[in-house]
Amino acid sequence: MSIKASINATEPMTETPSPYSHLRVNNDRLRVDFEELAQIGATPEGGINRLALSPEDLLARAWFADRIEAAGLFVRDDDAGNLSGVLRSRKTDAKTLMLGSHLDSVPNGGRFDGSTGVLAALECLRVIKENSIQLPVHLEAISFTDDEGCWRSLFGSRAITGLLTEDDIEDRRVDNAPFRAALSRAGIDPRSVFRAERSSSTLAGYIELHIEQGERLARAGKDIGIVAGIVGRTTYRFTFYGQAAHSGTTDMYRRRDALRGAALFIVRAHDAVREKYGDGVFNCGGVTVKPGAFNIIPSEADLLVECRHVNARLMSEMEMMIVQIARECAATHGLNFNSEQVAHVPAAHMNDRIMACIEQAASMLELTTLNLTSYAGHDSQILSRITPCGMVFIPSIDGISHNPREYTPWQNVIEGANTLLHAVLNYTLGEA
Amino acid sequence: MSIKASINATEPMTETPSPYSHLRVNNDRLRVDFEELAQIGATPEGGINRLALSPEDLLARAWFADRIEAAGLFVRDDDAGNLSGVLRSRKTDAKTLMLGSHLDSVPNGGRFDGSTGVLAALECLRVIKENSIQLPVHLEAISFTDDEGCWRSLFGSRAITGLLTEDDIEDRRVDNAPFRAALSRAGIDPRSVFRAERSSSTLAGYIELHIEQGERLARAGKDIGIVAGIVGRTTYRFTFYGQAAHSGTTDMYRRRDALRGAALFIVRAHDAVREKYGDGVFNCGGVTVKPGAFNIIPSEADLLVECRHVNARLMSEMEMMIVQIARECAATHGLNFNSEQVAHVPAAHMNDRIMACIEQAASMLELTTLNLTSYAGHDSQILSRITPCGMVFIPSIDGISHNPREYTPWQNVIEGANTLLHAVLNYTLGEA
Repeated sequence: MSIKASINATEPMTETPSPYSHLRVNNDRLRVDFEELAQIGATPEGGINRLALSPEDLLARAWFADRIEAAGLFVRDDDAGNLSGVLRSRKTDAKTLMLGSHLDSVPNGGRFDGSTGVLAALECLRVIKENSIQLPVHLEAISFTDDEGCWRSLFGSRAITGLLTEDDIEDRRVDNAPFRAALSRAGIDPRSVFRAERSSSTLAGYIELHIEQGERLARAGKDIGIVAGIVGRTTYRFTFYGQAAHSGTTDMYRRRDALRGAALFIVRAHDAVREKYGDGVFNCGGVTVKPGAFNIIPSEADLLVECRHVNARLMSEMEMMIVQIARECAATHGLNFNSEQVAHVPAAHMNDRIMACIEQAASMLELTTLNLTSYAGHDSQILSRITPCGMVFIPSIDGISHNPREYTPWQNVIEGANTLLHAVLNYTLGEA
Repeated sequence: MSIKASINATEPMTETPSPYSHLRVNNDRLRVDFEELAQIGATPEGGINRLALSPEDLLARAWFADRIEAAGLFVRDDDAGNLSGVLRSRKTDAKTLMLGSHLDSVPNGGRFDGSTGVLAALECLRVIKENSIQLPVHLEAISFTDDEGCWRSLFGSRAITGLLTEDDIEDRRVDNAPFRAALSRAGIDPRSVFRAERSSSTLAGYIELHIEQGERLARAGKDIGIVAGIVGRTTYRFTFYGQAAHSGTTDMYRRRDALRGAALFIVRAHDAVREKYGDGVFNCGGVTVKPGAFNIIPSEADLLVECRHVNARLMSEMEMMIVQIARECAATHGLNFNSEQVAHVPAAHMNDRIMACIEQAASMLELTTLNLTSYAGHDSQILSRITPCGMVFIPSIDGISHNPREYTPWQNVIEGANTLLHAVLNYTLGEA
C-alpha cells in the first residue's frame, strides 16, 4: 500500500509493532511549557482570563511563536490569526496534517482547556523532528483564533473551512466594529480574513487532544476518550420586552415585567428539556436586565440561550419547543418576545480511520479507551467538513471545566500527548 | 391665636376666604421652566437620563441655581448637595417651611417625576415674592440630592434629618470610593455631608408636589391626591452561588446553576406576594449573572430585590417569607445563598394639619381630592421624622412612571401648583 493510499484508506490498522513504539513525549519540556503558558492571563483563583484577541491572548500567541521558533519549526500566521508551528515533509506534494487546539479561554476559565491540545501538538512535532522521522505529510501544530467565541465562536477554523461570511465582518446584521477593531489590534486585517481558507486537497486531516470537560471517562475508569461525534449547537438571544414603570406605584396585577416572564421561561425550559430530551442540553448562561434598578419594573430581559443535541432531528424539535415555551411565557405576562439565532453548528462525525489510529496508539501504550460523543463544540466539528478529523479526550476531575477549578492530573496529560503522538505516526505511516 | 401657635396647631382650618384666594401661579413662566429643564439629560424617547451627580444632574442644578437667582431669591447649597432657593421672612426667629422635590431621575426616567415638584415650589416662592406677601416663615424651594437612589436613596433628605452614617461614606461594609468620587466631582466634600443636618426647631415643615405614579386618582376621577401615609420600603441584594462549568459537558442533573435557582425564586416570590399580601409590593429590578456566556453554567446571580408595605408588621412578615423562598430555591438547586439588606425606610404618616391645608386649598380652587397611601418612597418619608410633612399628588396618565412615557396633562400640573401655593398660604397664615 502506498503512503498516500494509506492516508486515505479507512480500514483498521493491523497490530504490527511500529519501529517508533518506544518514543514518548518529553515530560519535563511539556510541563515547563504548560506552567509558563498558565501564567499568561492567570487569575488569583488559579484560572485563566485569556479572551480571544485580548492583550493576554496576544501575549500567549507571542509566547507560542517563540516556542515554535525555539523548536526550530516554521512559524505560520494566517490571515485569520490562526498561529502554527510547521514541520515540513521532504515529500514535494505533501498534504498537511494539523494537530492543535486553541490558546484563548472563556472568561475566568481553566488552565487545561485548549492549552493542553496546543502544547501537546507542539511537543509531538518536536519529538518527531528530533528523532528525524520522515513523514509523508507536513505537520502543523495550530492554535485556532477565538475557539471559545468571545467574539465569533470557532472563528479560526471557520475561516480555514471557508465558512466565514460577510456578516461575520461587515455591519449588515450587527455592529461588527468592535470585532474589527479587536482583529486590527491583533494585527489581523478584517478584510483579509477570508484568505485564510484552505483547499481540502491540501489537507491530510486534523487531530486534537482536549480535556473531556465531563465525567464519563472517570466514571467508566478509562484513560483515553476517542470521540465518535460532536453534538450540534445552536445559540440564541431571546429578548422579552415589557414596560418600565415605578415598582411601588404600579398595580401588582397590571405590570408587564420582562424579568418575571424571562424567569418563568428559564424555569420551564430547564424542566421541559430534562423531561423530554434525555440527550439534549439546555443552558441560559446570562441575563441582561434593563433599566436595572431596585425601583423600576424591568422593561427588557435579554437572555443568552444555548441548545445542544447529537441528533439533528431531535435538536431541531427541541429548539422549536424552547422557542414555543418562551412565546408562552411572554404571553402569560403581556410581554413582547424576539428570538435571534446567533450561531448554529451542526453535529459532526469523526473519521473512522483516525479513530482506529487513536485506538491502536492507546492500546500500544496499554491505556484503556472509551468511545464517546462530545457535548462540547470543537474546531474539529468545523474542520470535519473539509478534512478527516479525530479527537483524543483525557479525563477532567469532577468534570469541571470553564472554571478556575478545571483540573486534569499531569499523568493523564502525558498519556494523552503520547496517544496523540502515536496516533499521528499510525495515521501518517500507515501500517509502518 | 398667634401666628406661631397657628403653625403648630393641628385643628382644621375654618373656611373664611383668604385675601389671597385670587392668586394663581404663572402658567407660562412655569411651562417655560418645565420645557427648559426637560431638555437637560433628554433622551431620544422623550424621557430623561439625569442620574444623581451625573453631568446631566449637575447641569440641571446649575440651571436651577440660575432660575433661583433670576427670581431674586437666595441660593442655598448645603453640605450634602441639596440646592435651594430661599425667600426670607422678615420675622427674626422665623422657622423654614421647605417646598420641593428632586432634580435627579432614574435611568431612562420621565420628565415629570421630581421636576414638577421642584419647579412648582420655585413658582410658589416667585408668586409670593412678587405679591409681597409677608409670611412668618422662611420659604425654601429645595431639590434633594439623589432621591432616586442612583447612589444612596434619599441621600439629601437623610442628610438633613441626621440619618446618614459613616457607612454611607466610608468603606466599612462596601467600597464607597465611586460614590465619594461622584460627590467630589459635584463639589460636595464627602467628609462634610453630615454637616447638612438641620435642627427640628428651625423647621416649620415640608410640602411636596409630586406626580401620583399610579392610577388611583384617574380611576376615582379626582384632581388632587392628599397623601396620608407612605409605605415602608426595604431593598435587598440577593446572591445565589452555584458552580461555573461547561454548559455542554456537565451532566444536566449535576449542575449547580445559579441562574436557574434565581429564576425559580423570582417566579415563586411574585406568586407568593400576590397570594398572601394584597397590599404588599415586590420587585426584582435586575439580575447580574457571572460569568455570563452562552456556554458556561452561571456561577453567580445577583438580584436587586425590593419590598414595600404600609403596615410595619405585615412588611416584616412579608420580607421574612421572601428570604425563606430564596433559601428554598437555592437549596433546590444545590446553591449557596446570601442576602444583604441594602436600605430600609419605615412607613411614614403625613401631618394632619398640612393635609387639612391641602384639602382647604383644593376645595377653594374647586378641585376634587382623594386621600391615599403613597406606594413610592419620597423625601417626606424621611423628613417626617423631624418636621410636619405633606404631599400633593397630581394624576399620572395610565399610572406610568420611571419611564419616558410618564405623562401628566399640563392642566393637572397647574392645578397641583396652585393647590401647593394655597396650601402654603393656609399653613403659614393660619386662619388669615
